[in-house]
Amino acid sequence: MTPQKNRLRVIPLGGLDEIGKNMTVLEYGNDMVVVDAGIMFPDDDHPGVDLILPDYSYILKRRDKLKGIVITHGHEDHTGALPYLLKDLGGTVPVLGTRLTLGIVRGKLEEHKLKKTKLREVSPGGHVNLGAFGFDFIPVNHSIPDGVALFIRTPVATILHTGDFKLDQTPIDGRLTDYAALAKAARQGVTLLMSDSTNAETPGHTSSEAVVGATLRDIFDRAEQRIIVASFSSHIHRVQQVCDAAVAAGRKVVVTGRSMVNNTRIARELGYLHIGDDDILDAYQMQDLPPEKVVVLSTGSQGEPLSALARIANGDHRTVSIEAGDTVVISATPVPGNEKAVSRVMNRLFKAGADVIHKGSARVHVSGHAASEELKLMLNLVQPRYFVPIHGETRHLHAHAKLAQAVGVPAENVFIMENGLCLEITESGAEVTERVDSGVTYVDGLSVGDLGQFVLRDRQVLASDGIALVIVAIDARDGQIAGDAELVTRGLVLGSDTDAVLDEARERVSKVLKRTAKEGVTDQAVVKQALRDSLGQFIWERTRRRPMIIPVVMEV
Amino acid sequence: MTPQKNRLRVIPLGGLDEIGKNMTVLEYGNDMVVVDAGIMFPDDDHPGVDLILPDYSYILKRRDKLKGIVITHGHEDHTGALPYLLKDLGGTVPVLGTRLTLGIVRGKLEEHKLKKTKLREVSPGGHVNLGAFGFDFIPVNHSIPDGVALFIRTPVATILHTGDFKLDQTPIDGRLTDYAALAKAARQGVTLLMSDSTNAETPGHTSSEAVVGATLRDIFDRAEQRIIVASFSSHIHRVQQVCDAAVAAGRKVVVTGRSMVNNTRIARELGYLHIGDDDILDAYQMQDLPPEKVVVLSTGSQGEPLSALARIANGDHRTVSIEAGDTVVISATPVPGNEKAVSRVMNRLFKAGADVIHKGSARVHVSGHAASEELKLMLNLVQPRYFVPIHGETRHLHAHAKLAQAVGVPAENVFIMENGLCLEITESGAEVTERVDSGVTYVDGLSVGDLGQFVLRDRQVLASDGIALVIVAIDARDGQIAGDAELVTRGLVLGSDTDAVLDEARERVSKVLKRTAKEGVTDQAVVKQALRDSLGQFIWERTRRRPMIIPVVMEV
Repeated sequence: MTPQKNRLRVIPLGGLDEIGKNMTVLEYGNDMVVVDAGIMFPDDDHPGVDLILPDYSYILKRRDKLKGIVITHGHEDHTGALPYLLKDLGGTVPVLGTRLTLGIVRGKLEEHKLKKTKLREVSPGGHVNLGAFGFDFIPVNHSIPDGVALFIRTPVATILHTGDFKLDQTPIDGRLTDYAALAKAARQGVTLLMSDSTNAETPGHTSSEAVVGATLRDIFDRAEQRIIVASFSSHIHRVQQVCDAAVAAGRKVVVTGRSMVNNTRIARELGYLHIGDDDILDAYQMQDLPPEKVVVLSTGSQGEPLSALARIANGDHRTVSIEAGDTVVISATPVPGNEKAVSRVMNRLFKAGADVIHKGSARVHVSGHAASEELKLMLNLVQPRYFVPIHGETRHLHAHAKLAQAVGVPAENVFIMENGLCLEITESGAEVTERVDSGVTYVDGLSVGDLGQFVLRDRQVLASDGIALVIVAIDARDGQIAGDAELVTRGLVLGSDTDAVLDEARERVSKVLKRTAKEGVTDQAVVKQALRDSLGQFIWERTRRRPMIIPVVMEV
Repeated sequence: MTPQKNRLRVIPLGGLDEIGKNMTVLEYGNDMVVVDAGIMFPDDDHPGVDLILPDYSYILKRRDKLKGIVITHGHEDHTGALPYLLKDLGGTVPVLGTRLTLGIVRGKLEEHKLKKTKLREVSPGGHVNLGAFGFDFIPVNHSIPDGVALFIRTPVATILHTGDFKLDQTPIDGRLTDYAALAKAARQGVTLLMSDSTNAETPGHTSSEAVVGATLRDIFDRAEQRIIVASFSSHIHRVQQVCDAAVAAGRKVVVTGRSMVNNTRIARELGYLHIGDDDILDAYQMQDLPPEKVVVLSTGSQGEPLSALARIANGDHRTVSIEAGDTVVISATPVPGNEKAVSRVMNRLFKAGADVIHKGSARVHVSGHAASEELKLMLNLVQPRYFVPIHGETRHLHAHAKLAQAVGVPAENVFIMENGLCLEITESGAEVTERVDSGVTYVDGLSVGDLGQFVLRDRQVLASDGIALVIVAIDARDGQIAGDAELVTRGLVLGSDTDAVLDEARERVSKVLKRTAKEGVTDQAVVKQALRDSLGQFIWERTRRRPMIIPVVMEV
């Protein structure tokens, strides 16, 4: 594709029809910028996969044009792919973001031993140019401090990209969404609005973060023993409210869980979290404190099996154990797919004698994303010509599209995009023109991108139906079978009389081998296929299972 | 345990700290009865498992005492274990239930080729004696018709077992929960209340099923093309409301999905579903009908991959396909664990051009279980001396226990039980006395009960980390290695240069074999362990994965 003047190309590489791995490419002439570089966490359809990255080969192929990567806020689904992308890019592309966002990014990059990166801090309300692109950073509220929307100017069009946002009228840090800046962008003219669709199906307004503080104070007032609060470690406003309620109740805050320790440290160093040194302790320092003087602030709000809260619930945390009468607050909502894991941890905590307070029983959590009425307000404030709902599954994008039409955006000006589709904007209008390379890249142990669908499919078969191996040795000199066939199964149930079934299977195998020998078959592939068919049929009859069958023919 | 007079034993074998496989044993003297015999559907922690049954060995060991199995309603989590239990019991134990319940049970038993069973119909409001036990069947509302609570009389105590229930003041079939019968039981004195905890965390009242009918009529009025409604096939009231709304809108009902076809047939035959023969069609008969004259009634409300709705969404249903402008109603809520599967189907339907209406966007579903205020009303109506919350995870049991205490049941009279615990009631009081055999039995293909934790654990390892096999042939005459070692891996990613890694792995293997040979090791177990250690270490270094490693040493 030759770069064309007077033509802005907008290509989401992730974040559409999914929750996670947000990434958008903007191109104009010889300049390219990337907004956000996030990861997605795998679900049960991806056994063994650690992380999912967007396939960003499109960016790598055009790396010479890349002027910078702009990050809207510090969450993993907007920053997590940065270490991989920066490694692959090789050179030092500048990464731009606000102070806390870059503080969190810096921590991530150091974990990946990436030190020579160019992090460029932009203050909220600030402006920065990257080639043909001008970026205004507009403060918005979200479940992490220092989040911004982006007003992006190009010679041919402007874009308002909301990042993740909500409109909190009483934010904890007093930092309101900058309505004046949004209105100013509208006055200058917004060609395209790209807006967060996560809660587009939720009616009304998302509650203010402040309501959680009131609930926490009530709970802390009533609690007579230890209090444990689990939350997202990056949710610094929530952490601040836990700290404030703890100090007000005369309790010390004890921090546990690696990411909670890291993020509270970063947030305090950068001035986003305020609590006196005497009031915040390491888990090792809590031994001398009576239970009624402690609030444990913990990771594990998603039921992650290795998290601090899960270890506490299972009774194998180094320093924190549950006593009957303790109070545990799950100050978060399960991300879709984590419901059962969270429930499991809650059940264990109840069994250990704790009272567990969660979103269903008290207002201990509010969302960080705008609901329908806020999304409509954003549309009305910004008055865009075109609209692309982003950050959401197809169902959310459709719900958001309906909201846009309800406030007067013509249906033909609303584009429900897919990852990899290119929206081109010129003076005369906008249209979807082509599909570029996009997709997913799996991180699996040390491997990035080597895991393909066939390995995943193998794992799924192994998980549901197990594996059966038949090993046959053949004398290299005369092609005769040497010794007995070995049969090994794993993950497969052969019924109550396993030995008898295995004996019968071995008989089948030797029959097959006698037959192929008699027929003069020498092609090992044919022998293997015959073994696979015969054994597969036999196991199906006996178990109604189709395990992976691997024939190994060894020449000895 | 010698049977004791004047002592009632209540033993839940399933349904506690879980949603599913409900089953309770009642024993008095030489008599035993079982209330419900349900299954649970496996989650992702149980790869390849088809069904989970309660371990009912306790019942089998006392089969001579068993006077009957009483079923409260026709849902799988109350009836699904019956075919297995009846097969294992051998003889013909009577199964008691209401008409529709037995109609559904009969279908299940026939699928399992169990024909010689003794099904004994009891009318709602009816009474039946089983040894020392007298049962009153009390009509209750639920998301399947003909559900009952049980008032159970024994010489020493009485039990009110609610089954699954809600208190619907405007039920579709006009059949109210029998408040008078509950009040009468209370007057006679209820020693123990066992009550449904599913929605104990939900504040307020569960809405009447009737609200769904009003929503469906609105949707059907507005829809201009085909309508597809997915629901639970056993939810005959819901099905009735879909049929009524369809007929009112001048549309024919087309039934698709095996269980939907079966259950609508049974319900019509037994007089629980009312729709004229001309108004209900088989999917094959719909070809001639214009889209605006059709409502497709389908299975698949839980996103089940092989269900009718999933096949429609994927474009591979035999007779139903989505056209842009079609309306799909998901008239159900995802059972915990199914959220992602349902979302996946919804996203596909949106992509195909349908408008998808679900619980989040309109009142197309209400729960079949009582919420907090109804549960408190039940407690106040029944006025039990002791209370055991049943049917729920530990979190729900605890929430229900709190409700009981809120309406005045003393904390010491509330028992939060576990599966297998025995509550003994005598004239002088109730106490938990012992723990009997209980647990889970996996149905895996044709095998019932042969699958153990170690096979499940194998499957989980296979799914997340794959498998590596090393096969070595040894000459039986001299113990020397014959031929090259074979290495086979599945579900494992060895990085971008797989061949090089495999070559290196083979080298490691031959080093190990040379070393053991040099050391004069002849014990194959020692050789295998050395291979496992060396290869495991090598693969961990290269991949950060710990696949299952199986060394096979063949003598040839």
